[in-house]
Amino acid sequence: MVKISEIIEFLELEIINVFGEYENKYVKYLKPIELVDEFTLDWVSFNNQNKQQIVEQSKAKVIICDTTILYSELLYSQNKILIQVNNPKLTIALITEKFFILKQELGIHPTAIIHPEAIIGRNVYIGPYTCLGKCEIGDRTILLGNIFIDNNVKIGTDVIIQAGVVIGNEGHNYIRDKNNYCIKFPHIGGVIIEDNVEIGGNTFISRGVLSNTVIKKGTKIAQLVYIGANVQIGYHCAIRPNVMISGSVVIDDFVILAPSSTIRDQRNISKNVLIGMGSVVTKNVPSNEIWIGNPAKKIEK
Amino acid sequence: MVKISEIIEFLELEIINVFGEYENKYVKYLKPIELVDEFTLDWVSFNNQNKQQIVEQSKAKVIICDTTILYSELLYSQNKILIQVNNPKLTIALITEKFFILKQELGIHPTAIIHPEAIIGRNVYIGPYTCLGKCEIGDRTILLGNIFIDNNVKIGTDVIIQAGVVIGNEGHNYIRDKNNYCIKFPHIGGVIIEDNVEIGGNTFISRGVLSNTVIKKGTKIAQLVYIGANVQIGYHCAIRPNVMISGSVVIDDFVILAPSSTIRDQRNISKNVLIGMGSVVTKNVPSNEIWIGNPAKKIEK
Amino acid sequence: MVKISEIIEFLELEIINVFGEYENKYVKYLKPIELVDEFTLDWVSFNNQNKQQIVEQSKAKVIICDTTILYSELLYSQNKILIQVNNPKLTIALITEKFFILKQELGIHPTAIIHPEAIIGRNVYIGPYTCLGKCEIGDRTILLGNIFIDNNVKIGTDVIIQAGVVIGNEGHNYIRDKNNYCIKFPHIGGVIIEDNVEIGGNTFISRGVLSNTVIKKGTKIAQLVYIGANVQIGYHCAIRPNVMISGSVVIDDFVILAPSSTIRDQRNISKNVLIGMGSVVTKNVPSNEIWIGNPAKKIEK
Repeated sequence: MVKISEIIEFLELEIINVFGEYENKYVKYLKPIELVDEFTLDWVSFNNQNKQQIVEQSKAKVIICDTTILYSELLYSQNKILIQVNNPKLTIALITEKFFILKQELGIHPTAIIHPEAIIGRNVYIGPYTCLGKCEIGDRTILLGNIFIDNNVKIGTDVIIQAGVVIGNEGHNYIRDKNNYCIKFPHIGGVIIEDNVEIGGNTFISRGVLSNTVIKKGTKIAQLVYIGANVQIGYHCAIRPNVMISGSVVIDDFVILAPSSTIRDQRNISKNVLIGMGSVVTKNVPSNEIWIGNPAKKIEK
Repeated sequence: MVKISEIIEFLELEIINVFGEYENKYVKYLKPIELVDEFTLDWVSFNNQNKQQIVEQSKAKVIICDTTILYSELLYSQNKILIQVNNPKLTIALITEKFFILKQELGIHPTAIIHPEAIIGRNVYIGPYTCLGKCEIGDRTILLGNIFIDNNVKIGTDVIIQAGVVIGNEGHNYIRDKNNYCIKFPHIGGVIIEDNVEIGGNTFISRGVLSNTVIKKGTKIAQLVYIGANVQIGYHCAIRPNVMISGSVVIDDFVILAPSSTIRDQRNISKNVLIGMGSVVTKNVPSNEIWIGNPAKKIEK
Repeated sequence: MVKISEIIEFLELEIINVFGEYENKYVKYLKPIELVDEFTLDWVSFNNQNKQQIVEQSKAKVIICDTTILYSELLYSQNKILIQVNNPKLTIALITEKFFILKQELGIHPTAIIHPEAIIGRNVYIGPYTCLGKCEIGDRTILLGNIFIDNNVKIGTDVIIQAGVVIGNEGHNYIRDKNNYCIKFPHIGGVIIEDNVEIGGNTFISRGVLSNTVIKKGTKIAQLVYIGANVQIGYHCAIRPNVMISGSVVIDDFVILAPSSTIRDQRNISKNVLIGMGSVVTKNVPSNEIWIGNPAKKIEK
């Protein structure tokens, strides 16, 4: 049970208008659209059609919406409370995180195996059957479980790593000798994962060959992703599920790689680029462009 | 050593004809074609060419085949036993399962870590280094090992989950805030996996955002598959290896997604659809159609 | 600190010329190009442009290069030592492996769970939270950790398996029965992994249906790869990250499958073939050809 007044206080600067009487009123939960009832905190996405109608027909008493919604006679007569914000979806995400998510348990599970020289920050969670080499884990970072982190990996603060992730094993780098046999190029670099990065389950991040593989602040890496040796990923990128990033690729800030896209080794993806689903990128991509296809080509927005 | 009479009794309704004298005869094993000998239970697929010749030249004494095979003078003189059925490949699968597979060990491995409020059915197998949150596991369900199952996951009866699978961590859902930073949309839903589902190794299944991710009865999900939040998969589908299904995709019954195909978020794939290998599906697909390519398009059968 | 004379002795047959006075001289480390200093062992790749200039401007005192570099007056006056070889990149890989990599710890971690009838070779490393069925592990083989190996898997000598790998669970093979339900074709085969194979993290290798899945000597399999039942892979192949190889595919020696490529079941890829990034191979590919695209087609070299 969350008081509306608490939610309004929490949102503070996000709020543009509040309509309706909310003193001593409360909501109990969030629900999918088909199960919304009078105790649900409901919301309407900015992009919906018929937003006014949705709000008027909602069984919920409290609705997060944008400022295009009119506080009509009908809404008034229904005693509905409207909380108007710029981005209802973002607002509901913030409210969910604050009021409706079970707080993550903290601590180090007794089955975690940690190298004696590893450096572990405060208020972390290190889940069961996790193996940590001689690495560094920042404050408030969460490792869910069944995770393998090798030596020479430095992880920042407020990072979330899902189950089954492997970080810091060698990448796939081989040279052919005179018999045409594969000789491994040994990797002596490490991995640096900055603050607020998130890494999805069963993803693999290679350590660098001579220098480090680097994932910068705020970047979100999805599940079942491969990141090769020496890859550099900038700030606030979104790397979606099943993406494959070959060795030495450099990705600038705010880039989005859609699901199942593949990037050739040593290519550069500049700022604000969007690579489409299932694309195969074989060239450098200039900033602010959208590339799609196999092989990927620029498309007009 | 399995008596032919036992096999015939087991098959019962499957059998159309039996030729040859099988009293007190038996087979010892199944073998790949190049190693078939007189103690092998052999079989000929419906689609083979020269089926009559294959049967006549087989070194095996007992052969599962369809009704187009003639019990010729030669077969008679070889003392061969023919067991005729509609679908020899299916029949041999049933026989293998019944007579030639080592029975799965049951029980809960002492290293499994199970939430005290988890509900575990009877006659299950829960393998080593498996972590179970506050979840529900149905009767006769098998979890091979190194598996991570989060809270709020409900798994039916007779389910098989291979090693390395992760179920119920959050999907990859982010909203951009005004700084263009990624803010996670927190997931408070769960996962429902119905009876007789099978899930291949190192696959990842996200929990729902507000409602549940659902995999219905009899659907078989392969290895290294990503299934996003709120995905609904119908009855008796086959999701092949390396498939990527984005969030909120709805897949109807009897659908086949061939290997390495990718489905865009919020798309619907209707009944009996086949999506080809490596396809990238960006649109809704009507029932009974075949779509192939990147981007995927309808092809005539 | 490594003496130059030791490196020269180790390289032996690789060396073509040594220029400069190396008695009592040494190097301390390898560094990425931007951090090279006077104690770095530097090298110049055969394919670089301006190689002479790079060598002359390097801050390093010892440089591995090919024979096209002139030991100029400038190099002489800088007291530089040139070690000329045919393939500098390969040479640096060999030197790194010999002198600059931390030796792999040996032994069996106490948390490894090993079937009592498993056969384990000498000088192996079996990392934490690894589960081994009734399998065979050859001498000097390394299993990093969080690995699941099923019964009936035979692994040769000098194999390296990264974290999160699953070997020997059943592949994704189902037959439709008369209700159109999926019936599993049970797998009674095994897996054979020959000497000097390497397998990347979170990869999945299926056991065979009746015979074995086989990976031959020297083949390197990357991360997040799926290998289906009964697949045969020849000698010294390179299977790159995120590749999907369907059941019963036969791959001959020295084949390269570039990242994110997918091979249809029962296809043959002959000797020395290169399959391009993101390709979808639906046909047999003759030897010495390059195939690219979705669907893949032959291209001229």
